[in-house]
Amino acid sequence: MDYSRLISDKMLGVKASAIREIFKVAGQPDVISFAGGLPAPESFPVDAIKAICNDILDNEPITALQYGISEGYAPLKELILARMQEKEKIDTTNDDIIVVSGSQQGADLVAKVLLNEGDGVICEEPSFIGCLNTFRTYNAKLYGVPMNEDGMDLAVLEKTLQENKNIKLIYTIPTFQNPSGITSSLEVRKGMLRLAEQYGVMILEDNPYGELRFSGEAIPTLKSMDTAGVVLYLGSFSKVFSPGLRLAYLIVNKGMMEKLVVGKQATDVHTNVFAQMIAARYLRDYDIDSSIEASRVLYKHRCSLMLSCMDACFPKCVSFTRPEGGIFIWATMPEGIDSGKLMLEAVERKVAFVPGSAFMTDIEKPSNCFRLNYSTMSDEKIEKGIDILGSLLRERL
Amino acid sequence: MDYSRLISDKMLGVKASAIREIFKVAGQPDVISFAGGLPAPESFPVDAIKAICNDILDNEPITALQYGISEGYAPLKELILARMQEKEKIDTTNDDIIVVSGSQQGADLVAKVLLNEGDGVICEEPSFIGCLNTFRTYNAKLYGVPMNEDGMDLAVLEKTLQENKNIKLIYTIPTFQNPSGITSSLEVRKGMLRLAEQYGVMILEDNPYGELRFSGEAIPTLKSMDTAGVVLYLGSFSKVFSPGLRLAYLIVNKGMMEKLVVGKQATDVHTNVFAQMIAARYLRDYDIDSSIEASRVLYKHRCSLMLSCMDACFPKCVSFTRPEGGIFIWATMPEGIDSGKLMLEAVERKVAFVPGSAFMTDIEKPSNCFRLNYSTMSDEKIEKGIDILGSLLRERL
Repeated sequence: MDYSRLISDKMLGVKASAIREIFKVAGQPDVISFAGGLPAPESFPVDAIKAICNDILDNEPITALQYGISEGYAPLKELILARMQEKEKIDTTNDDIIVVSGSQQGADLVAKVLLNEGDGVICEEPSFIGCLNTFRTYNAKLYGVPMNEDGMDLAVLEKTLQENKNIKLIYTIPTFQNPSGITSSLEVRKGMLRLAEQYGVMILEDNPYGELRFSGEAIPTLKSMDTAGVVLYLGSFSKVFSPGLRLAYLIVNKGMMEKLVVGKQATDVHTNVFAQMIAARYLRDYDIDSSIEASRVLYKHRCSLMLSCMDACFPKCVSFTRPEGGIFIWATMPEGIDSGKLMLEAVERKVAFVPGSAFMTDIEKPSNCFRLNYSTMSDEKIEKGIDILGSLLRERL
Repeated sequence: MDYSRLISDKMLGVKASAIREIFKVAGQPDVISFAGGLPAPESFPVDAIKAICNDILDNEPITALQYGISEGYAPLKELILARMQEKEKIDTTNDDIIVVSGSQQGADLVAKVLLNEGDGVICEEPSFIGCLNTFRTYNAKLYGVPMNEDGMDLAVLEKTLQENKNIKLIYTIPTFQNPSGITSSLEVRKGMLRLAEQYGVMILEDNPYGELRFSGEAIPTLKSMDTAGVVLYLGSFSKVFSPGLRLAYLIVNKGMMEKLVVGKQATDVHTNVFAQMIAARYLRDYDIDSSIEASRVLYKHRCSLMLSCMDACFPKCVSFTRPEGGIFIWATMPEGIDSGKLMLEAVERKVAFVPGSAFMTDIEKPSNCFRLNYSTMSDEKIEKGIDILGSLLRERL
């Protein structure tokens, strides 16, 4: 059987995530991996989850194990909306919420509902490879807009919108972006909103890291400033509770919800009910804010340590971001240096990172940038790994 | 904001599942609903799941709560493969397995990987509305092949394949089909395999009910007879363990797996790890076969009771299937009677079922058939509900 003949056009060009391939190397026990993007496991509230599981299975086992509804477990939806109103000042009067099986599924449903093949999606360049791949599986055309220190370059964004009438969506991670760690300024956010309204396109605001701020001042979400209903807000439990449970949520204008629900029905019927009940009881009965605060303290320490090691041993021609939260640092080498080749050498010395090309709209083009993650690393590994990487960089640059 | 202008072509024509809309009526406490498709909650092994949850959270909490891999939790994959080799005589030498978030996602991934817009999918007429909607969200063209008492009409199947070169996939539920309860004969299965090979198309064998046989002789799965690698086998935990946990699996030729994994990565990264570990430990440490046997005994009783009530009080001009397993009975009224209109009258008398049109490739066309479900009903409700329905049918026919 010649299967290749049967594969859909939209899947022909999409390859297994480069990051996941790198994980296979990085997962070897003797490799110090800065390639990951996992939350620190010490942040998982294991004891609370255990108590909650027992409570659910003692008192509401049938609800947890039977089919649920596509929109999500109602008490969880209410708790999330109340929390988002309080924490992110999101006015949800005109909105509704759907629980999804992780942020990636949120992006998948938005793509399903909005995108015909050939429709355009504007993304930050660099951006999160997972969602870029999601858009690719719909045969969308990706338009990368370069990131400045304060977020998307608004002039390029406007030019891209002017010149390409096929664009339907702007994809942004405005806070502690993956992979760059950059936080979009208030001005950039307002500019994005204005342009989205003006050109009649939607914005997917992906905010998995927003609560992980460990320095600087909070900047309002795009959603909280969205008076026109152009923002689709995607929140996640993966970085503040547990990624293994696959829980996220879309908050969107009511006018957009029906098709998202139909898409969800046709995709996986509904999200795991037991997991939704665990999250709901955790929000209701425990203090998620102190758990998040503990993560912030941990990530602040690890980020500071990694940055000071990089200051000490990276050559001066390598610049890097200094994130105020989240879990990633983005390093930029001089033009013409290929981080893909460097990565192969680094892996030989038992250190791994993700080359910048993985995060670009054109993954074939070599990149002089790379992503470093610090969220799961011990001090010792951060010091040793950055020392090895610094030596390699000094030798090569 | 005019959202309708932004909706993708493929989602424009897909409506919220008629069944789910009917559930809103059927869910009212005073309505006897034969409209559902839920497993009996008394079949859920609650105590075992509770013990397993405690064990997992005591001993491997990080594995359960951290990110997993797209292919699925390795011990679960091995246990499922071993079980399928033993129970369904599936030779998995050339195959691989991917764990998915329910059968619906299995169908979604198959559609994503195979179907361009306009590609054809042959389905049984009637067929499972959920998967028909999944194919619709890819703008696939559906070709219904009528069901005889022994499965798809092979002559119509061959003619459809001959006349439509855009066909890539045959979708079948060969055992205790939803909605008809029909089991395809060995001859029909062999015919489908032969035709798929001859015309170079794949078969998606959806088998969520196969283990729920309560009378008659088992018939081999298409997958177990598939020497050419044309069958994509979709198994599920929803009807034999728990639907709320959203666990199913695709067993396919290795040549098909890479793109399915890429599709899974882009769709929801991976299936809930905690749920996968619960299922794995249940398969490893408990006796799922006796739990399934208990469901069989229960469903046999409920099916027999419903059939004997129907024999007693339905007018003779209404025929119906006599399933040897599964959870559905399909009733056929004389030509020209619209089960959609009848349903509205039935609901007024506090009984619900699903009109046949919901399961057709053309959902706008009235159907003289309807689906009845017995899996969650008490004896009293079966007797009372069928009595009410029988009265209504005798009045109208």
